[in-house]
Amino acid sequence: MISKSQVKHIQSLGQKKHRDEEGVFIAEGPKLVKELLQNDQAEVRHVYALGEWIEINERSLRGIDALPVDQQELERISQLTSPNQVLAVVKKFETPEAIDVKGKISLVLDTIQDPGNLGTIIRTADWFGLSQVICSTDCADVYNPKVVQATMGSIARVKVFYVDLIDWLNAQQDIRIYATMLEGKDIGSMNSLNEGLIIIGNESKGIHEEIVKLVNAKITIPKKGGAESLNAAVAAGIILSKIT
Amino acid sequence: MISKSQVKHIQSLGQKKHRDEEGVFIAEGPKLVKELLQNDQAEVRHVYALGEWIEINERSLRGIDALPVDQQELERISQLTSPNQVLAVVKKFETPEAIDVKGKISLVLDTIQDPGNLGTIIRTADWFGLSQVICSTDCADVYNPKVVQATMGSIARVKVFYVDLIDWLNAQQDIRIYATMLEGKDIGSMNSLNEGLIIIGNESKGIHEEIVKLVNAKITIPKKGGAESLNAAVAAGIILSKIT
Repeated sequence: MISKSQVKHIQSLGQKKHRDEEGVFIAEGPKLVKELLQNDQAEVRHVYALGEWIEINERSLRGIDALPVDQQELERISQLTSPNQVLAVVKKFETPEAIDVKGKISLVLDTIQDPGNLGTIIRTADWFGLSQVICSTDCADVYNPKVVQATMGSIARVKVFYVDLIDWLNAQQDIRIYATMLEGKDIGSMNSLNEGLIIIGNESKGIHEEIVKLVNAKITIPKKGGAESLNAAVAAGIILSKIT
Repeated sequence: MISKSQVKHIQSLGQKKHRDEEGVFIAEGPKLVKELLQNDQAEVRHVYALGEWIEINERSLRGIDALPVDQQELERISQLTSPNQVLAVVKKFETPEAIDVKGKISLVLDTIQDPGNLGTIIRTADWFGLSQVICSTDCADVYNPKVVQATMGSIARVKVFYVDLIDWLNAQQDIRIYATMLEGKDIGSMNSLNEGLIIIGNESKGIHEEIVKLVNAKITIPKKGGAESLNAAVAAGIILSKIT
């Protein structure tokens, strides 16, 4: 049985303000929660789950208290339209103070505000072995429940930084900056890269002009049909598939 | 001023049953509605819009009646969380009885149930110049408002068919069937294709076993990191980028 104050507390974590204050976020569903429980980087604080889930996953819990809830209670605390067996409150991941971009490829996101897109981009970066994604401060919050869900567990493996993008890019020395744009060098002619920053822009507005000025190479995914643009996560996937 | 029965009627089009009965669907937002108004294949039946929108777009309307509504009325009829200026009721597109797969690449979707994913796949297919997408009957409905929205107008250019996938694939002669799977030939080693069926499967369940048996070539996007799978739309984009 879950108390009223617990329900209120968990619901409050749907808002960034409360997540920031407490340094935690919500993860839901058996797949994601299990992945977080198995990941040494993740500190799962509380688990709320159906009795059946707790019985089956007792070993995965490794001593973490799991409060049994019924379906109705789960619905009250869940951020999903179809709550799925288990919800966990997890400590936010630590990110190092300094961002190390040497010898690796990093994705840089300019104003990716759709939570599903941001989560899918993080998942895609993870698939292609990237260790970090650098976001402008006006991107969606990585701990937004919809972002967490869309990462499908990759949130525990990919470090996500938030920076003032113009300042930060201005400070980058000796590293090439690539930008995905509607006009540029055909991605098909690109070789694989060992190092670089790949900027993906907002779908409707593209990359900010001040940022475009800092770019060393513009790359493009040639358009063969009628669509005006590609989804940002799809574009990121195509580029990473080619250069990694 | 919109009548109660009009509101009820438009709201009912959120459900497939009512869309099927009336042969229409809903499109929302200035970008999508304008694209449909400009497209000769699209028959826009009714437009409900803020007065400002109607004033600016009078010419695009080409004689179609547009009923002015206020923000509150728009919110009542909209399927979006943030209604945006205009909503149109549009006749469903005609699709030919027979599906012609000769001399072209077609995407074939096995159980893509997430509306956003389906819409993004159609948009991606359009970007790469594909003219058709063939869906198993248990894919999301292409006229679901979330699918329509995610296609960003590509719904007017890409023909979408629904078939019993096993029967239909069994009947395909003289065309190669490719499937995107976790194990197969590296997409990097593929050449571009002029003709073929490319099957994309459900993200969590993959492609049905009975369908895998009908496949001529399995292709894979090599995984370099920790993510278990790629988003179906991202996978489709990577493959189309390589083979078109």
